[in-house]
Amino acid sequence: MRFELTKDFLDILRQKIAEQEILWIQENVLVLHFADVAEILDKLSNEEAKFIYFLVDEDTQADILMELDEDVRDRFLASLTIKEIADQLENLDSNDAADILGELSEDKIQEVISQMDDDEAAEDIVDLLNYDEDTAGGLMQKEFLQAHIDWPVNRTIVELRKQAEDVEKVYNIFVVDDSNRLLGVLSLKRLLFSNVKTKIADLYQSKNIISVNTSDSAEEVAAVMEKYDLVSVPVVDYQNKLVGRITLDDIVDFIKEEADKDFQLATGITEPIERDASIWRVARARLPWLIIGLLGGTLGAKVISGFEGSITQIPALAFFIPLITAMGGNVGVQSSAIVVQSLARGTKDFGNIFHKLLREAAVGLFNGVLLASIIFVIAYFFGNAQLGFVVSISLFTVIIFAAVIGTLIPLVLNHYKIDPALATGPFITTLNDVTGLFIYFTIGMLLYGL
Amino acid sequence: MRFELTKDFLDILRQKIAEQEILWIQENVLVLHFADVAEILDKLSNEEAKFIYFLVDEDTQADILMELDEDVRDRFLASLTIKEIADQLENLDSNDAADILGELSEDKIQEVISQMDDDEAAEDIVDLLNYDEDTAGGLMQKEFLQAHIDWPVNRTIVELRKQAEDVEKVYNIFVVDDSNRLLGVLSLKRLLFSNVKTKIADLYQSKNIISVNTSDSAEEVAAVMEKYDLVSVPVVDYQNKLVGRITLDDIVDFIKEEADKDFQLATGITEPIERDASIWRVARARLPWLIIGLLGGTLGAKVISGFEGSITQIPALAFFIPLITAMGGNVGVQSSAIVVQSLARGTKDFGNIFHKLLREAAVGLFNGVLLASIIFVIAYFFGNAQLGFVVSISLFTVIIFAAVIGTLIPLVLNHYKIDPALATGPFITTLNDVTGLFIYFTIGMLLYGL
Repeated sequence: MRFELTKDFLDILRQKIAEQEILWIQENVLVLHFADVAEILDKLSNEEAKFIYFLVDEDTQADILMELDEDVRDRFLASLTIKEIADQLENLDSNDAADILGELSEDKIQEVISQMDDDEAAEDIVDLLNYDEDTAGGLMQKEFLQAHIDWPVNRTIVELRKQAEDVEKVYNIFVVDDSNRLLGVLSLKRLLFSNVKTKIADLYQSKNIISVNTSDSAEEVAAVMEKYDLVSVPVVDYQNKLVGRITLDDIVDFIKEEADKDFQLATGITEPIERDASIWRVARARLPWLIIGLLGGTLGAKVISGFEGSITQIPALAFFIPLITAMGGNVGVQSSAIVVQSLARGTKDFGNIFHKLLREAAVGLFNGVLLASIIFVIAYFFGNAQLGFVVSISLFTVIIFAAVIGTLIPLVLNHYKIDPALATGPFITTLNDVTGLFIYFTIGMLLYGL
Repeated sequence: MRFELTKDFLDILRQKIAEQEILWIQENVLVLHFADVAEILDKLSNEEAKFIYFLVDEDTQADILMELDEDVRDRFLASLTIKEIADQLENLDSNDAADILGELSEDKIQEVISQMDDDEAAEDIVDLLNYDEDTAGGLMQKEFLQAHIDWPVNRTIVELRKQAEDVEKVYNIFVVDDSNRLLGVLSLKRLLFSNVKTKIADLYQSKNIISVNTSDSAEEVAAVMEKYDLVSVPVVDYQNKLVGRITLDDIVDFIKEEADKDFQLATGITEPIERDASIWRVARARLPWLIIGLLGGTLGAKVISGFEGSITQIPALAFFIPLITAMGGNVGVQSSAIVVQSLARGTKDFGNIFHKLLREAAVGLFNGVLLASIIFVIAYFFGNAQLGFVVSISLFTVIIFAAVIGTLIPLVLNHYKIDPALATGPFITTLNDVTGLFIYFTIGMLLYGL
């Protein structure tokens, strides 16, 4: 039932395109779901993709365009004329059109807009371009259904039929007053099952209406939609006037992107990588993290070389180097991950930084005492009680230190509007490696009296 | 506009509950959105929560119950009688009821079901309990709207009105034949704007209908809904008979849980932690990872102690211990993260394992040569060309080795139905630390001729 793209299919298709066998393409490609057509176009050359794209009807073109891989889409759009781009934008939802337009240069944006025939659509897009893309204003679309509170059901259906032409997915109708202020929400289901003479005022839900403001962050929108189980949320301006709506599918994309980004930063892959990317691109994406690791390792070598004398006298000190660095890194990443996750959830009542730090220090204290006790016994058997004391006191100090650093850095990054997830990556580990080594060897020198 | 829960509000509420001031509670709590009421109940004691809960009307009770924190809900349900639980289940969507019931013991499930008054609801729930919870069957709900292809619009509206009582969120109507086989989909919008005499057969969309099978995995369902931009997807059995539907909000929960789990495993937090969990619980959640790190560090110490003679003769060998372990860990985590992400996306055309390994080895080769060259120069300045060769050859070997291990382990875990995300955590890092150290000192011994 579901289409599966195979290499054989692609080979045949390429040949049919070369032979311009339009009939075959109509019967085998154009009948497919737009998402499947987009998947096929992703794999074709620009010229081949264009050949198929312009065989499709306009509405489906818009759907396909939004389903293409981002780099395929950019490449594809770059090969179109200004007029062709303008035509494509008119078929898109306003938020999608604004996203695509936002990728172009100032000059090109102007040109494309001036070439659009549908003034209303152009105006909507220009309006959306004013909002920051990570806010509700930047996420919302201008296509939604609205009904006046005084309309009866039959008039509402007539009016909505006009509005509905542009609106692809309908979940709710927003109810407004004369000044376009949001008063409530009416489900399509309720409308469908009502008497045609009933007034909207008697049908709609006005209690506990959840809306977001244009300036709310994308994280807040995601949190609100999740908390209140919403499929679409109305967007209002500062005067509570209805200006747009955000649907759950757009937020799902946002949630997935954010989660992927956090995971990638935590595991050292700095740019999103397609499954079939070239080896060179994959290698390049991983290099920044590795180079930071290399520099951290070099700094670590510098620290240890400063204690060369200690190692010559007590070689057993070298045994526990990996343990100290690994534990500092682990604790640091754990502490920062907790903070990053809280921040990503848009937690507002985050408590003050000092409270957070105290908590992490307490957790560090608890785990530090436990782990230090275990390692004392182990180090004792590797050497003697003296080695046991050096390793366990160092480990304890490093754990507390790493917990505090791990908590502090993402909070500081967030304060300066830098993505706090950066902290779960190489910075914390490298920083903790170097400070951990310094703490370890200093304590070693002191306790051994070197 | 949106409710913000404060400590002051909670303090007053607790007092009002103690004084049984029902009027105050009605005016200040029961008027709130159910998600806000749930947020309040999460913070109250079981007795306080029950007092408020049973003041609420039945439909809202169900909404509140599903919004409670999982441990609060478990505690809450445990304090109810069998009959009370049975009553609560009747108000829930079938999938939610089955989830809750699934948490109870076999015996208690039997008892609860026998106490349910609504036989149809009980039957639906029992049916859903048969499916594995991570499949489409386990995720689907029995509440959906369906229309027969031969009905005209007016009869459809009458029939749907009956069905719609139990269906909270309506997006689409599924169209079936006499044998209940899925033929297509009809949007509520289309139905609303159609002539009452028109037959469903002339209205519905039959091309490219996307459905999932009861046995499809949750990952597959998420991938299908995302690819085809669906808000709800019909679930069919092996005879293509319509048996349920899955809505996007349920899948969003699944996507978020999976992403959180992967992030937590990658950063060493083994159980999901609430923001206000006790310090003891937070500490305990992080211990497993740290203990594995401790054992890994001990193994590392064991390896290094085996080469104590080498360190005594060439102390500079100790300088680069942190670099070797850090780089092995980094490369391993990167490789495993890529595999984990591909697997999480439900990628089916994953290519064979051998191809994947070759690719990772090639990436490792590229980055290995580059990083080894850099470290040669650095190590040369720390010591001499001999140290440069030891460190750079070791680093190169460790990088290739870590890339292969990092790719292989999640694939093997996945093959044995163990969550592959486990691999991005401590196992890879610890394994790579130990093997890396062994490689490093062995190469050191060989090149220095010790």
